[in-house]
Amino acid sequence: MKNDNDYHRPIISFTSDFGFDSEGVGIMKGTALRLCPWANVIDLTHGVDSFNVINGARQFETIYCLPVGYHVCVVDFGVGTARKPIIIRAKRGDYLIGPDNGVMIPAARRLGGIDEIVMIENRKYMLMPISTTFHGRDIFASAAAWLARDIPLKEFGRDIPLEALVPAAFEDARTTDGRIEAIILHINKFGNIFTNILVEQMASINVEYGCLVEVLFRGKKLKILYENTFGTLGIGEELIFADSYGRVALAINQGSFSKKHKVQIGSGITFAKWQTA
Amino acid sequence: MKNDNDYHRPIISFTSDFGFDSEGVGIMKGTALRLCPWANVIDLTHGVDSFNVINGARQFETIYCLPVGYHVCVVDFGVGTARKPIIIRAKRGDYLIGPDNGVMIPAARRLGGIDEIVMIENRKYMLMPISTTFHGRDIFASAAAWLARDIPLKEFGRDIPLEALVPAAFEDARTTDGRIEAIILHINKFGNIFTNILVEQMASINVEYGCLVEVLFRGKKLKILYENTFGTLGIGEELIFADSYGRVALAINQGSFSKKHKVQIGSGITFAKWQTA
Amino acid sequence: MKNDNDYHRPIISFTSDFGFDSEGVGIMKGTALRLCPWANVIDLTHGVDSFNVINGARQFETIYCLPVGYHVCVVDFGVGTARKPIIIRAKRGDYLIGPDNGVMIPAARRLGGIDEIVMIENRKYMLMPISTTFHGRDIFASAAAWLARDIPLKEFGRDIPLEALVPAAFEDARTTDGRIEAIILHINKFGNIFTNILVEQMASINVEYGCLVEVLFRGKKLKILYENTFGTLGIGEELIFADSYGRVALAINQGSFSKKHKVQIGSGITFAKWQTA
Repeated sequence: MKNDNDYHRPIISFTSDFGFDSEGVGIMKGTALRLCPWANVIDLTHGVDSFNVINGARQFETIYCLPVGYHVCVVDFGVGTARKPIIIRAKRGDYLIGPDNGVMIPAARRLGGIDEIVMIENRKYMLMPISTTFHGRDIFASAAAWLARDIPLKEFGRDIPLEALVPAAFEDARTTDGRIEAIILHINKFGNIFTNILVEQMASINVEYGCLVEVLFRGKKLKILYENTFGTLGIGEELIFADSYGRVALAINQGSFSKKHKVQIGSGITFAKWQTA
Repeated sequence: MKNDNDYHRPIISFTSDFGFDSEGVGIMKGTALRLCPWANVIDLTHGVDSFNVINGARQFETIYCLPVGYHVCVVDFGVGTARKPIIIRAKRGDYLIGPDNGVMIPAARRLGGIDEIVMIENRKYMLMPISTTFHGRDIFASAAAWLARDIPLKEFGRDIPLEALVPAAFEDARTTDGRIEAIILHINKFGNIFTNILVEQMASINVEYGCLVEVLFRGKKLKILYENTFGTLGIGEELIFADSYGRVALAINQGSFSKKHKVQIGSGITFAKWQTA
Repeated sequence: MKNDNDYHRPIISFTSDFGFDSEGVGIMKGTALRLCPWANVIDLTHGVDSFNVINGARQFETIYCLPVGYHVCVVDFGVGTARKPIIIRAKRGDYLIGPDNGVMIPAARRLGGIDEIVMIENRKYMLMPISTTFHGRDIFASAAAWLARDIPLKEFGRDIPLEALVPAAFEDARTTDGRIEAIILHINKFGNIFTNILVEQMASINVEYGCLVEVLFRGKKLKILYENTFGTLGIGEELIFADSYGRVALAINQGSFSKKHKVQIGSGITFAKWQTA
């Protein structure tokens, strides 16, 4: 058996709203490999909802499950405008590379918080001429590859303070007066919907596994069980459960919650403990 | 030129019904790379029909085209229930890792049969705490990575006999009284449909290339040519042909068989030799 | 820091119309890794429009952004017919591997032109028996892996002249009498449409950034701004812009040009300078 340290291949990961069908996905990876041939490139996902920084931030937040690495996130409705290209060094040791639009801050929090932020300014580490349409290739994949080649962070540009950045695309949900005011961050292939509620936050409304929850959204009021398994449910029954990343989600067992209830990313949802009359 | 043996990177592959848009795909790969940084991770497919073990078993059966490796298959409507997580060692030398729901048995047959089956019980080789929703990460990707690090199979848990497993998601088609009774295992992007009939089984109804076949399904009776090439067909003509993995499929040249005839995975289809009246 | 030359892993890339959901994608990569375990396999895209060699040629043309490598392109409506399997060696040093149907020629031009063309005839470098349905695995992935193992090009088969090949799937647009006659090569996830007009060709109709263009297609006549950024546009405004690969494209800011105007790949589009009356 090898020792882990015998084998150093830096991880460069990519997250975007390009869709896997886009050649842009392959080109970002190819660009990274061209500049750093010993990197191990990996896709987190390219299925972020188009232009949706809330959804992108939720998807990118799961990057903590990957090895420490150089993580590019391109969900960028402002390409060609003056928004800053940035690198965030997180306390875990990861580097997050992408536009300054709030999409990377929740991920940085999951990685222990932010150590340093640098604006990408040095054209030496960009592909010239920079296109107006594909900063994922010309600025972000390129910067990730040069970082993976051990170019120091300060070589890329000046330090910028957190206060100068666009705020996080989402914050954790808040509890007021026994109600959790939340938003929908993500909908998956199965129609499950994912909120910004932290699992430990359910205690703030006195809800634990086995409790019924009053769920309000779009003028609807539902009574749904909070449980830690689908196993006890009949087909078609609704469920509140802990997702795979420490937040709370809603599903219909072997059905689509999002289709049945027509919810959308970014819309509000409220939880309270169900009060038997 | 290098010698093949100079270069040992274990292959870890992933098959699921997550859809490529899911961050879960990247996270399973990232988890494997975190635990076994020298692995070569590769996706077979994540396009298995949701929750469909028949379709998953057909897709996963093609794993014999990959190098000998550690192959994870997560098509799992029962996550969170009591179904067993298992590892199957196949005679070719591969390890198949996934839930005990019949989805991996056809693949094991293609790899020469089953040598040994072990239940994954040792929490040392799981990510703790185990989520109720993402065993693909916490149990299966983790086990694959530890196996790839040469942890012996018996370390993971107790041996279990084949008889104790959930039966295979599908069996090969059967021939009775000059009719092959089959099922649809898979539909591809082009609308071609794929059955559980083995190519050599066509002889059991005295059909060879160039013969006409009577095809019965959903109350329809079609007369279709069995041929080894699309090349002789006009656009829109139907065809029975050998698929790329030793089974029999149906297509419309440059059209969609599944859309035209509204067939579904799991539904029955019967073949007989066409009898000229 | 390592030196680039310390680390030799040949790049094998794959482009197809299989769709990422197809197990064929994983199997081509697995086949390449089985034959050449030290290769670095990468997908350009598998989202080429089904059977569409024009779209495939446009997608594959972007391969110049990848490292020098062995690039397989399978967009092949003629599998099973007599079309030739070929290898094109491009002047940049890349090898392009696929069917002789014109799909690879635009890519070869981007790589500096064609050095040599060989027909794949030597069965030693194919997977036997060759299926009639999956030449991507049995001929093309296999040839790429053997080339990556430094098997000389002449081992694969006889030289063939460019004149013997099926013509390129598309040519650059032409300018006549102040009008650029073009075609639509590609539509992306966002509904942007991509033409065969080279950026430098806009000068041939006296158009530069900031100019208005008369755009004719499907009986419509539109007045659209040619600009180098989306940043100045309101949501819903149309734009002509330079794509990321040196050609001209059309978009609606944060909307879908292709849906609004119902354009299709392969259809014609004409540009002229807008004349104020």
